[in-house]
Amino acid sequence: MKAALSTLISSRTLSPPPSPSSASSSSFARSIWLQPKTLSNSPSFITPIPSKTLTTNNYSRLRLRLNHRKSLTANFSSIMASAYKPEEARVPPALPLPTPPVNKFKIGLCQLSVTADKERNIAHARKAIEQAVEKGAQLVLLPEIWNGPYSNDSFPVFAEDIDAGGDASPSTAMLSEVAQRLKITIVGGSISERSGDQLYNTCCVFGTDGKLKAKHRKIHLFDIDIPGKITFIESKTLTAGQTPTIVDTEVGRIGIGICYDIRFQELAMIYGARGAHLICYPGAFNMTTGPLHWELLQRARATDNQLYVATCSPARDAGAGYVAWGHSTLVGPFGEVLATTEHEEAIIIAEVDYSLLELRRTNLPLLKQRRGDLYQLVDVQRLNSK
Amino acid sequence: MKAALSTLISSRTLSPPPSPSSASSSSFARSIWLQPKTLSNSPSFITPIPSKTLTTNNYSRLRLRLNHRKSLTANFSSIMASAYKPEEARVPPALPLPTPPVNKFKIGLCQLSVTADKERNIAHARKAIEQAVEKGAQLVLLPEIWNGPYSNDSFPVFAEDIDAGGDASPSTAMLSEVAQRLKITIVGGSISERSGDQLYNTCCVFGTDGKLKAKHRKIHLFDIDIPGKITFIESKTLTAGQTPTIVDTEVGRIGIGICYDIRFQELAMIYGARGAHLICYPGAFNMTTGPLHWELLQRARATDNQLYVATCSPARDAGAGYVAWGHSTLVGPFGEVLATTEHEEAIIIAEVDYSLLELRRTNLPLLKQRRGDLYQLVDVQRLNSK
Repeated sequence: MKAALSTLISSRTLSPPPSPSSASSSSFARSIWLQPKTLSNSPSFITPIPSKTLTTNNYSRLRLRLNHRKSLTANFSSIMASAYKPEEARVPPALPLPTPPVNKFKIGLCQLSVTADKERNIAHARKAIEQAVEKGAQLVLLPEIWNGPYSNDSFPVFAEDIDAGGDASPSTAMLSEVAQRLKITIVGGSISERSGDQLYNTCCVFGTDGKLKAKHRKIHLFDIDIPGKITFIESKTLTAGQTPTIVDTEVGRIGIGICYDIRFQELAMIYGARGAHLICYPGAFNMTTGPLHWELLQRARATDNQLYVATCSPARDAGAGYVAWGHSTLVGPFGEVLATTEHEEAIIIAEVDYSLLELRRTNLPLLKQRRGDLYQLVDVQRLNSK
Repeated sequence: MKAALSTLISSRTLSPPPSPSSASSSSFARSIWLQPKTLSNSPSFITPIPSKTLTTNNYSRLRLRLNHRKSLTANFSSIMASAYKPEEARVPPALPLPTPPVNKFKIGLCQLSVTADKERNIAHARKAIEQAVEKGAQLVLLPEIWNGPYSNDSFPVFAEDIDAGGDASPSTAMLSEVAQRLKITIVGGSISERSGDQLYNTCCVFGTDGKLKAKHRKIHLFDIDIPGKITFIESKTLTAGQTPTIVDTEVGRIGIGICYDIRFQELAMIYGARGAHLICYPGAFNMTTGPLHWELLQRARATDNQLYVATCSPARDAGAGYVAWGHSTLVGPFGEVLATTEHEEAIIIAEVDYSLLELRRTNLPLLKQRRGDLYQLVDVQRLNSK
């Protein structure tokens, strides 16, 4: 396979961001203990439920807070802030954004053509990674299922025993070798993984030392049925993963999701609360859901959680059993598409600038404005690990 | 004010949806008790945390489930489904979608020009509602702050005592009168409300009998600071509401958010779990966040929660202190823009078809695929009301 991979840089860019400024401090003001009146004519559960929230315990806490209020007059807004309990909107409370090891770096998204020849696919991916690194990429992202066709028939055939390594997993052996040799971080798209008698759709993250840093098994299997358009039941052959995956790398804290995982906003919210700078979603959306939702979901996850989102799809093969939408994309923390492409093979090189995370969170201080008194997202495994 | 309001019907429409089919039943398969190996080299909290989840209690439950598995072989997938606990992804568990009183109806979105003359604004809104009803609307949505200018200076001046009613609230008196006379449901955008010594940004919902069915006070105040672009601190004058608002109307179960409320995905998730067919967001995004996020957020809320989203903005007044983006829109449960407009005054009439809710939830059975074993969204007030 000698076809050169085209390279493009940041095809769509928004105007430069305004300069940072201090956060407004008066986000939370006024008293909250004025209970709204219950309106008549509303069915029971959907009426506002103010009175019940005043259990004995709550009431004691409320009084405590009222007393606290009297004792402090100088810092009005910060006291009021606690009434809305923004820190309780995530359980356990959201971690502060960690200082990333690097603020600016280039990411390479390798939108690869995939064939039924595994050896070719591995060599092809290696070449693409090398080209991305030549263009300056310090982090390279590969597509979902890049070492063989995306199909329930192919998953068992192309599956590798990643934990055994070496000859049992030539695809990840290549990733490890390249990561170490070129001293880059690789979010290795996904391959089908054999573990005992189970198969998973698995993403491996390699550090600059070539070591496996994390392994994400797709949590939400792709079982959908849009008659006449697209029907796919991944659970026919695959088993779902059992844990979210977030990993500290040389290019920041990265949450991992695979394709259908992106539909579940809760996963991105968990990653946000765990301090992710970036979420990487290798994914192969299709010709129905791709135009409808691919870019939408990326931009929504980035905007709502105020972090970077990078996606990488296989290139489209109109003759394949499953036709991928393509359109690998980098999205910034304001939901802005920083770089994208069409459906052909391509390597996108684009700059990530983590200083924008603080800027956007200052512009729109959503984390301080959430209403933990009204809703709370529980990260079950992090809570259990406490 | 004699300028006729332009009317448009569904300016952008996606191709017709494929026909319904039965949901795939094998969404949840395979065993889940294979714990992934913990990888070395990962910082403590961000490694997968499998072992801790096996507390004694959990372990007992797990064994129970294993025994249960042995006793039942016929219904494999439904047993496995429980392992992922999709029903626990919402706390309390999500309510089933209620059967709506009507499946198809027309909604009218009145994108009104707003002046500093309250009397004119009220008469103008009345006329627009009447025009929408002439075109067949059974539900009419008005813009955020439609009875006076959107500014901290104007909020106190145009505020009305809604609970006192009558002369103390000419804006809502008009809504009540029109709703009863024309036998329609009105989601009355918002006006500034005076209650004691507090001001709120409040949306009133009137039923076909003219009675106030619900009152939503904006929960998330619009305090943002994008230097050189848009800075606004609503909390300078307004107090935040204390409860989500969802109401059963003659045109379905409707959740209410006002403008900045749309940024908080948790609110839409709560409404989804409470069985909303539709979320209405009166809102006045601006010339910075409008083009960036207005349509994005509407489409994301609709897609993620598989319900209808309707928004209504004031028309743009380039000379106003706060310049609204416009672009009132109806979005379907696949995130498809069913009808929208530009920034001029307009009445959008578009059809809502609730049968699409079931269809889309069958196509993409997200509710059955959520991972309550990994994340849970708590609706605090509904939980406390149990």
